[in-house]
Amino acid sequence: MEQSLTGKMKIDACFSPHLYPIYRDDASIVVIIDVLRATSAICTAFHHGAEKIIPVATVEEAMEYKKKGYLTGAERDAVPLNGFDFGNSPFSYMGENVKGKTIAITTTNGTQAIHAAKDAYKIVIGSFLNLTALTQWLINEKRDILLLCSGWKNKFNLEDALFAGAVTEEILSATSNYKLGDACLALKYLYAMAKDNPYKFLNYSSHKERLARLNLKKDIKYCLTPDQTNVIPVLKDGALVNLAPVVA
Amino acid sequence: MEQSLTGKMKIDACFSPHLYPIYRDDASIVVIIDVLRATSAICTAFHHGAEKIIPVATVEEAMEYKKKGYLTGAERDAVPLNGFDFGNSPFSYMGENVKGKTIAITTTNGTQAIHAAKDAYKIVIGSFLNLTALTQWLINEKRDILLLCSGWKNKFNLEDALFAGAVTEEILSATSNYKLGDACLALKYLYAMAKDNPYKFLNYSSHKERLARLNLKKDIKYCLTPDQTNVIPVLKDGALVNLAPVVA
Repeated sequence: MEQSLTGKMKIDACFSPHLYPIYRDDASIVVIIDVLRATSAICTAFHHGAEKIIPVATVEEAMEYKKKGYLTGAERDAVPLNGFDFGNSPFSYMGENVKGKTIAITTTNGTQAIHAAKDAYKIVIGSFLNLTALTQWLINEKRDILLLCSGWKNKFNLEDALFAGAVTEEILSATSNYKLGDACLALKYLYAMAKDNPYKFLNYSSHKERLARLNLKKDIKYCLTPDQTNVIPVLKDGALVNLAPVVA
Repeated sequence: MEQSLTGKMKIDACFSPHLYPIYRDDASIVVIIDVLRATSAICTAFHHGAEKIIPVATVEEAMEYKKKGYLTGAERDAVPLNGFDFGNSPFSYMGENVKGKTIAITTTNGTQAIHAAKDAYKIVIGSFLNLTALTQWLINEKRDILLLCSGWKNKFNLEDALFAGAVTEEILSATSNYKLGDACLALKYLYAMAKDNPYKFLNYSSHKERLARLNLKKDIKYCLTPDQTNVIPVLKDGALVNLAPVVA
């Protein structure tokens, strides 16, 4: 139900898919966040003209799609799995690789978060890459917002929290129509400390260390760069589609 | 198992009892945090000479203890329940009310967190009231530390996160033997923003509003005052006892 125009809407954040049942309601838009790297890869694929992305929870389901002839991406523990077309590096979801294609993907954290929230009123994909377009779209929707951080294996992670703080800050800068839940109050401060140099801020985070060991610095820098695209990937009938096609 | 002297120990924070199964391990000391007000009340009771506090998960269990002649505290939704001796205001756990007594208590959040972590290697109770004594004790234990925030009905709350940040900061100021999990990295920054005026910082938090509506400002100010006591309440055989008796 749309919120009353006089009452304030609410933004809150949930730091783990495992906590989603505690935060869920029937009216909020759920923003799925997995900055390093699933939701950044998804935004990149749509920016490069992908038609549909089917998020699946298990490697077995991804393999079923592969057998049916779909392009497939599969990652676990930050490593691409053998036998699939992509891992979850955004750089593999570019250009002719993805244009006009439907891709089934499964990742350690991001697709698990989508799966956890699949009955939400609406699901949208967020990353630094589509930050401003996303927040403008959210404001236009006039709904309560739940920022669902994918985290790392259901634990809190710093980069997803940071992005949730960025969305909170952008929305507060644009309108006073929202009231913050406690998690967003904390994130607003966190983002204020970090925004001048998010790469440095994340220097000691667990997942950045994990990716740096795998020589993925280029991925990290790209994933932390705001506003590379205007795509708005939303879940419709089990697949992600882009509401605002802007093709590279 | 005690950590090696060369390897760093770890501090992490868990923002909800519901997430505890994701964070649990067999070796960490778990610090239970429910600043407003259960863990503040527990520290206060021990400071005033309580002998034992039995945390119970349900009102029914508390009633059983009441029938057996124990003193009992019971709170739900920040309101004391009828038929019990105390709610969870620290001011009711003072002086002759508690001296030498064993008290069974159940609260909305704090005793639920103790219950969730009951199989941990060791459980200790933390609040601003025993901040410095607690952090010194934790450092002396030379163990991994998990800061378990009780939150509000399994959601993140600001005051428990703030206290977890205070513990993180005090430990880092005293020793370089610890490595921070992502949640503690975030909390360190949060505490840096808040420490000069935590009362003001919490101004917009959900639970502070809840308590302010109930005219509990005095409780809030007391619960945010560091170092009123040296008590170290730990769980032994299902009951909390104080390792460092300092009686008012």
